[in-house]
Amino acid sequence: MSGVRMAEGVPSKQMAQVIEKTGQPVVFKEIPVQKPGPDEILVNIKYSGVCHTDLHALNGDWPLDTKLPLVGGHEGAGVVVGMGDLVDDWTLGDYAGVKWINGSCLSCSFCQQADEPLCAKALLSGYTVDGSFQQYCIAKAAHAARIPKECDLEAISPVLCAGITVYKGLKESGARPGQTVAIVGAGGGLGSLAIQYAKAMGLRVIAIDGGDEKKKMTAELGAEHFVDFMTSKNVVSDVKAATEDGLGPHAVILVAVNEKPFQQAAEYVRPRGTVIAIGLPAGAYLRAPVFESVIKMITIKGSYVGNRRDSAEAIEFFRRGLIKAPFKTVGLSELQKVYDLMHEGKIAGRYVVDTSK
Amino acid sequence: MSGVRMAEGVPSKQMAQVIEKTGQPVVFKEIPVQKPGPDEILVNIKYSGVCHTDLHALNGDWPLDTKLPLVGGHEGAGVVVGMGDLVDDWTLGDYAGVKWINGSCLSCSFCQQADEPLCAKALLSGYTVDGSFQQYCIAKAAHAARIPKECDLEAISPVLCAGITVYKGLKESGARPGQTVAIVGAGGGLGSLAIQYAKAMGLRVIAIDGGDEKKKMTAELGAEHFVDFMTSKNVVSDVKAATEDGLGPHAVILVAVNEKPFQQAAEYVRPRGTVIAIGLPAGAYLRAPVFESVIKMITIKGSYVGNRRDSAEAIEFFRRGLIKAPFKTVGLSELQKVYDLMHEGKIAGRYVVDTSK
Amino acid sequence: MSGVRMAEGVPSKQMAQVIEKTGQPVVFKEIPVQKPGPDEILVNIKYSGVCHTDLHALNGDWPLDTKLPLVGGHEGAGVVVGMGDLVDDWTLGDYAGVKWINGSCLSCSFCQQADEPLCAKALLSGYTVDGSFQQYCIAKAAHAARIPKECDLEAISPVLCAGITVYKGLKESGARPGQTVAIVGAGGGLGSLAIQYAKAMGLRVIAIDGGDEKKKMTAELGAEHFVDFMTSKNVVSDVKAATEDGLGPHAVILVAVNEKPFQQAAEYVRPRGTVIAIGLPAGAYLRAPVFESVIKMITIKGSYVGNRRDSAEAIEFFRRGLIKAPFKTVGLSELQKVYDLMHEGKIAGRYVVDTSK
Amino acid sequence: MSGVRMAEGVPSKQMAQVIEKTGQPVVFKEIPVQKPGPDEILVNIKYSGVCHTDLHALNGDWPLDTKLPLVGGHEGAGVVVGMGDLVDDWTLGDYAGVKWINGSCLSCSFCQQADEPLCAKALLSGYTVDGSFQQYCIAKAAHAARIPKECDLEAISPVLCAGITVYKGLKESGARPGQTVAIVGAGGGLGSLAIQYAKAMGLRVIAIDGGDEKKKMTAELGAEHFVDFMTSKNVVSDVKAATEDGLGPHAVILVAVNEKPFQQAAEYVRPRGTVIAIGLPAGAYLRAPVFESVIKMITIKGSYVGNRRDSAEAIEFFRRGLIKAPFKTVGLSELQKVYDLMHEGKIAGRYVVDTSK
Repeated sequence: MSGVRMAEGVPSKQMAQVIEKTGQPVVFKEIPVQKPGPDEILVNIKYSGVCHTDLHALNGDWPLDTKLPLVGGHEGAGVVVGMGDLVDDWTLGDYAGVKWINGSCLSCSFCQQADEPLCAKALLSGYTVDGSFQQYCIAKAAHAARIPKECDLEAISPVLCAGITVYKGLKESGARPGQTVAIVGAGGGLGSLAIQYAKAMGLRVIAIDGGDEKKKMTAELGAEHFVDFMTSKNVVSDVKAATEDGLGPHAVILVAVNEKPFQQAAEYVRPRGTVIAIGLPAGAYLRAPVFESVIKMITIKGSYVGNRRDSAEAIEFFRRGLIKAPFKTVGLSELQKVYDLMHEGKIAGRYVVDTSK
Repeated sequence: MSGVRMAEGVPSKQMAQVIEKTGQPVVFKEIPVQKPGPDEILVNIKYSGVCHTDLHALNGDWPLDTKLPLVGGHEGAGVVVGMGDLVDDWTLGDYAGVKWINGSCLSCSFCQQADEPLCAKALLSGYTVDGSFQQYCIAKAAHAARIPKECDLEAISPVLCAGITVYKGLKESGARPGQTVAIVGAGGGLGSLAIQYAKAMGLRVIAIDGGDEKKKMTAELGAEHFVDFMTSKNVVSDVKAATEDGLGPHAVILVAVNEKPFQQAAEYVRPRGTVIAIGLPAGAYLRAPVFESVIKMITIKGSYVGNRRDSAEAIEFFRRGLIKAPFKTVGLSELQKVYDLMHEGKIAGRYVVDTSK
Repeated sequence: MSGVRMAEGVPSKQMAQVIEKTGQPVVFKEIPVQKPGPDEILVNIKYSGVCHTDLHALNGDWPLDTKLPLVGGHEGAGVVVGMGDLVDDWTLGDYAGVKWINGSCLSCSFCQQADEPLCAKALLSGYTVDGSFQQYCIAKAAHAARIPKECDLEAISPVLCAGITVYKGLKESGARPGQTVAIVGAGGGLGSLAIQYAKAMGLRVIAIDGGDEKKKMTAELGAEHFVDFMTSKNVVSDVKAATEDGLGPHAVILVAVNEKPFQQAAEYVRPRGTVIAIGLPAGAYLRAPVFESVIKMITIKGSYVGNRRDSAEAIEFFRRGLIKAPFKTVGLSELQKVYDLMHEGKIAGRYVVDTSK
Repeated sequence: MSGVRMAEGVPSKQMAQVIEKTGQPVVFKEIPVQKPGPDEILVNIKYSGVCHTDLHALNGDWPLDTKLPLVGGHEGAGVVVGMGDLVDDWTLGDYAGVKWINGSCLSCSFCQQADEPLCAKALLSGYTVDGSFQQYCIAKAAHAARIPKECDLEAISPVLCAGITVYKGLKESGARPGQTVAIVGAGGGLGSLAIQYAKAMGLRVIAIDGGDEKKKMTAELGAEHFVDFMTSKNVVSDVKAATEDGLGPHAVILVAVNEKPFQQAAEYVRPRGTVIAIGLPAGAYLRAPVFESVIKMITIKGSYVGNRRDSAEAIEFFRRGLIKAPFKTVGLSELQKVYDLMHEGKIAGRYVVDTSK
């Protein structure tokens, strides 16, 4: 199409990490640079966070098929270097983020109510369309995240999925400033972001995790209380005791949903409180006793990723300096090593890949 | 206290059905009429509905202790015949209803936010305080339901628990006029009230139950669709197909929560939809797959009884003639027979006892 | 663009009513049929309602400039006869409606939160882009209203602006089923639609207007009370008296905002109630005493047109047969006569133009 | 009543400031100590803030009659020294606050929905019942504020009306963490509290007031921007420019409602934003253009004092050390001097009276 605008110097070939078959290692190879369609932009990815979802895509263990061959990645931060002829609200050189939701129909009943993540035609970066583990990535112009120029592209990349997701979960919880939220798995990558977002939102945090190192870390990030599930004799009563009036937290954010923590959450959450399930472990179940759930009138809610508005808000908290995600950067060429560490459960904090290496 | 006002002719003795020991039949006997405290009214109960909860109180099979000896009943409709000296907003001769929530502290954080049913000091009629299976019953003036004079006391009695409870569940679901709600157990006592409230609230109803008789009855009450769980080959797809766009109902009301219907509800409810659990089967569990709950962002919520505002609203729908609860009346003396039928699962619609017999 | 799909038989010329200069009569003339852009559809308009806004466009008396020359009209109902190559969710032959919001950026912070009507780049049919007073009209595919095939295109046309607008106002009011809404100007075109929508939403209606004919008509449409502002000695106390408890309606819908009715509305609305201003009289002011507004905690809210979701919901109420807008049909060639009648204030109900005449 | 419990040493006489006739100076004199009724507590007031409302009570210039003779005051902080026999949730020696809402019926439709301030039978401290400008004051047990023992009674007294009121206004605004609120009159007593509450709630603040001293002070309290209405050439565009995207603040809090600031607020508030009117100037009017209000869909809302839940939350923010109200303390005997200064407009910050002097 003649109307495509491209920055100078965009090459026709690039390096990418490609999943050629699920269950096998990614392949680092040269592939063509795509051209943006009329409603798309082309982003020169500088950095991309690596998320657990990427490992699920590689393993093919979710009840949802991926494109194959596939370039994974959905926390890509970079610079706009091209756009189609219907695009009039991006400028070459703008900073842009490629998120999990790469595009959606913008017309269905979910898109009409700003629930793009529920769109049946949603394009998923690094899952149903090629994602950010390449140097040049396509995104729908209406969905790519706008990143202010004063933001560091390396540091913001993990915010583009992990940050937005926990922020969305906190919003969905309905917890109001001054109320208390318990974060289960507070010392992990999602958890540590959740603590910071919660604090920025005027919420008070009870961190739940295991070990003194996590206790120290969560306190530094702003948690007021720590309950160690490894040493606590009674997690339920300890969490309740950590609230001013002993009635339990107003909301619970489960960043990694397992059956036991979930059932405990339903027990210690305050009457009328909300338990938010984030994270997508394959095959796990929510389970809660009917009697207590009813007489306490508790709410259990699944929270997926944020919509475009949530994303912009989550980025704005980062821009203001209120969110610091600890991360470690390696070259894109070393992505398989990150997957290996992840598979072994050896990752603390987030890994970021530098596409120039 | 000198300030107590009493109508003429209130006797000192009355007939009542008394639970002397859980697990044994109720005893129909003469007991004293109580005097109202300063913030209480005395209600001459004319009629009282009989609820499943009364059977639980008799059996003592809930994880919550009852008072003993106990006069059961919490759907009592009658006439105000006495009041304490702090009471200035009731008049002798007013119609009043004795509900499950007989009183609450009106001071705790739950009472302060109009969640009296969650008050830790809530008095439960026919459970922790004597209820409506007697001719004269005490209720806290601030909690007794106001029944307009044009209402029939016999017909309204089942509304005082069953009606209020399903109305509350519908409110909690967040379903808006024009949206669709599936009612599971639509052909039962609670279900048939739920259909009528839903219709009066501008909601569209999918009735789920078993058998042609229930199909006919729910259609007459206003349900637009019927899914027969006994003959349907696939309840989940049939319920979805009964919605205009095939995406499933916006809310599901489970009037009797069992594990299988619950799990189906989580599957057929529309993304962003809400599943409301009403009813208190001992020992049952809610159970839903995490993956689907999260990516569909569904909400599961326990709904207990209504607060005072909900109660007034539910009664007003009845007053306007929009709610007709089918019921059968017997003398108070025959209460044990009703329990026996209930125990055998032989009750369709609601039983009401007439305290004059 | 090669990708445009067009139905057979779409002509290159058509008849249209054109505003060549504001303040002068419209000109009925032959003009070219436009081609849809990549994200647009072409609609063969069959019928179009005529709205007061069209008269403002003709007169040029709003603080907002129109395109010139301009084809007015924004209640167009017709058949899809063409579409651009990015459009994959419309089929030739579908029924479509052209609404006031013809298109929007779908990217700004308002579009992101489903407030397309607030988009700074919103295209306004018959105002900033050509509208439905022609035989073939362009609309953005993501914004055109989907009209089910079972709907009558003539009867639905007035719903596309008037119906959606009053439905939106009722939604914005926050009034819940069972609550009472006062509709000021209930006997007019917008008002009579508002009564029907309110009823379908489970609301109770107090109609406020002048004259016995309006009293009769509003009662037939479902209003429970009528307050005649021409004969009432005290509108404020009469409206309050028309509510069950004398505290006033929960919401007030002002379909034509004038200063006096507005001030009265702020007086009779229930504490915590909401006054919704709809309609755009040039130069009018909302005015309410601070003291009463504060101690009654009332809310005053401007409501513009509906977003796409509101529009779909309003159409669905129509499809279900719950909304009947009285209208009179004339040929498109006679549009100026309709403007003349409108200018003289002689229109009761809605006029619809038939583009084939 | 025999059941009254009283602490030892409560005298039968006390000093109080009495309004014997409106429009005349208060009289400092000895009056009897009242006995608490069955549902009341007696509070030994230690400190009481002085509010503008007290001056209105003295002047009798509001459209609402006061009791006469009257002891004013409604920001009283003290110690519980007596209670009636229905009171079982207070202990002698507890800290308690006497607020504007001294009591309410707890039964009407407003009390039932936690809107006690709207109760038609609400008792108003220092207005319709005797207030806190005496050493021993009566309050309804269910309404008195619970003050944690770790709080300083002197410092907390101004929070009991001013703090709660601005906190309520911020809650009513619906502004969410990360959004921006403009506070008009930010440098005054209410305004400086509003800045601190807004910040604690995760909101970003634009302070609007006049003069460099106010600019410095509001910045220290946490405002990010200052617009000087005395020197600004265009307040509307300056306020908009102080928001990240130039679209204006999400909410505006008008702590002293005058016509011009109000109209400006309606202009610079973001589309879909909310303007909250706090404060009760006699005879003032809200006034906004219909056209802009409608197409921007703005909300204008009166906010009165907080309910009991709001009060508890506002106090909890204070307890956590997040709120510091600047105040100056004088003896109760000097109250008239405070009124004189207030009348002359010479008060910056809040005055507190010490009842022991």
